[in-house]
Amino acid sequence: MKKVSIDYRVPYADTDQMGVVYYGNYLTFFERARNELMRVCGYTYREFEADGCMLPVIHAQLDYHRPARYDDLLEITAFVQAQKGVRLEIACEVRRKGEEEILVKGFTRHVCVSSSDFRPCPLPERFLGIIR
Amino acid sequence: MKKVSIDYRVPYADTDQMGVVYYGNYLTFFERARNELMRVCGYTYREFEADGCMLPVIHAQLDYHRPARYDDLLEITAFVQAQKGVRLEIACEVRRKGEEEILVKGFTRHVCVSSSDFRPCPLPERFLGIIR
Amino acid sequence: MKKVSIDYRVPYADTDQMGVVYYGNYLTFFERARNELMRVCGYTYREFEADGCMLPVIHAQLDYHRPARYDDLLEITAFVQAQKGVRLEIACEVRRKGEEEILVKGFTRHVCVSSSDFRPCPLPERFLGIIR
Amino acid sequence: MKKVSIDYRVPYADTDQMGVVYYGNYLTFFERARNELMRVCGYTYREFEADGCMLPVIHAQLDYHRPARYDDLLEITAFVQAQKGVRLEIACEVRRKGEEEILVKGFTRHVCVSSSDFRPCPLPERFLGIIR
Repeated sequence: MKKVSIDYRVPYADTDQMGVVYYGNYLTFFERARNELMRVCGYTYREFEADGCMLPVIHAQLDYHRPARYDDLLEITAFVQAQKGVRLEIACEVRRKGEEEILVKGFTRHVCVSSSDFRPCPLPERFLGIIR
Repeated sequence: MKKVSIDYRVPYADTDQMGVVYYGNYLTFFERARNELMRVCGYTYREFEADGCMLPVIHAQLDYHRPARYDDLLEITAFVQAQKGVRLEIACEVRRKGEEEILVKGFTRHVCVSSSDFRPCPLPERFLGIIR
Repeated sequence: MKKVSIDYRVPYADTDQMGVVYYGNYLTFFERARNELMRVCGYTYREFEADGCMLPVIHAQLDYHRPARYDDLLEITAFVQAQKGVRLEIACEVRRKGEEEILVKGFTRHVCVSSSDFRPCPLPERFLGIIR
Repeated sequence: MKKVSIDYRVPYADTDQMGVVYYGNYLTFFERARNELMRVCGYTYREFEADGCMLPVIHAQLDYHRPARYDDLLEITAFVQAQKGVRLEIACEVRRKGEEEILVKGFTRHVCVSSSDFRPCPLPERFLGIIR
C-alpha cells in the first residue's frame, strides 16, 4: 500500500498569535497529502469526481505533539490505513523535513458517495486496485 | 443608499504570529458585511444566485491603517459606492465597535454574470431598485 | 457546568466546491464557541493569557453527520465535558439555528501550560471555580 | 531585480461553492511567493524578523482576470516593483504552470518597521543590496 509525502512550506497565514501553526490548518495539510496520494496512485481526486464519486469526510481526529512554525519546511505523509465496503481511512503524519519526530498525526474517515444522489456507493474498482 | 454594519469577534484563527489579524482575512470580513448588506436590503445573495446571477469579484483593494487583534469586537460596514451597467462597487470599513477610527478600509468591484454561461448580464431590476 | 451557544452565519469563504462547509473550518467554529464559553463564564481567554497561562490543543476529533451550507445560520454550542489535573476537554456541537439535528460534533483536549516556559501548570483556581 | 516563481497545487480548502479559488486566498498565494523571493535572495523573512524588522502590509490590490480551480498547478511569481525610503512594493502574478495567461495579478505595499516599537525604520542595508 502506497505511502506518499509532500513538502510544504508554512506561510504566515497558517500561524496564529501563539507563534505556531493554528490547529485547524492541519486538516488542510492532510487534504494536500491525500490529494497527492491519489495523484501518485494514478487516479486523481479530480478524476474520481469526474467518474461520479465523492469522498466526503465523516470523521477526523488529530494528535498534536509539537508545534510547527512559520517558514518550517514540513513533510506531510499520507497512506491508506483501512478500507472496508464504502469506507476508507487515510492516515497522515506531519514532520519537519529530514526529522524523525512526528509533530502532528491523525486520520480522516471517508465514505464513498455518488455525486448524483449523495448515497453511499462502492469505491470504484479502479481505485480499489490501486490501494490494495 | 443603505449602509449596513455587522459585529464580528476575532478568533485566534484569524491572527498570525505578529499578533494581529492576517491581512488576507479582511477580504472574508468584507464578504461577511456584503452578505448582510444584501440580506438587510431584502434580497440575499443566496436568492440572487437562485435567480441565475452571480457577482464574482474582478478587483479588490485594501488600505491597512491599524491592526485588529484577537478577541476584538469589530464593526464591519458595507455600502454600495458605485454601480454602472453590469458593474458594482461595494466599499467596506472595519472599526473596533464603538470607536471612530478606521482600522482597514477598501472596496471590491463585481461584475454581474449569468450562472448558466458566465457571461455579463444586467443586474436584476429587483436588485437595482434596492440599491438606488 | 455552563453550556454556551453562539450564532454564526456561514460565508462563501467557508464553503468548498462541493457546495458545503469545508471540513477543516469546523475547528475554527469550535474555537469561536470556546472563546464565548470563557467570556460568558467571566474569564476570557485573553485574560487567561494575561495571567500567564495558555491552553494549546493536544487532541481534536470531529464527527460529520450532515453538511452546513452557505448562508446557513448556525448555532455552535460548547461545554466542558471533562477536567482532570492540567487537562481540559471541551465538547462542541453545530446545528442550524432552531433545529434539533446535530450537523457536526466533536471535542478538543487541552493542556494548561505556562506562557513563560510552555510547561504544564495547574489550571488557575479562578478558572476551576467557574467550570465546576 | 530578481523575479521568483513558486509552484502551488490548489487544494479543495482554497475553493468555494462557485467551484473556483476564493478571492481572499490569493493574498496568501502572494505571501507564499514573497517568502520565496526573500529566500532566493538569500535573506529570509524569518532572518529579517530576527534582525528586528517587520514588513507589515499597508495596502494591497488585486485584479481577478480568470479563476483558478481545484487541483490546478499554479505558478505564482513575485518581484519588487518599487522601493523608496521605508516603503516597498512587491508585485505578484498567478498563472497556470506552463501557460502565459495571467489569472490574477496585484501587489502589496509594505512599510519597514522596528519590531521593538513598531515605528518606521530604514530597510536593512543587506536587504537593499539584494533588491537593487
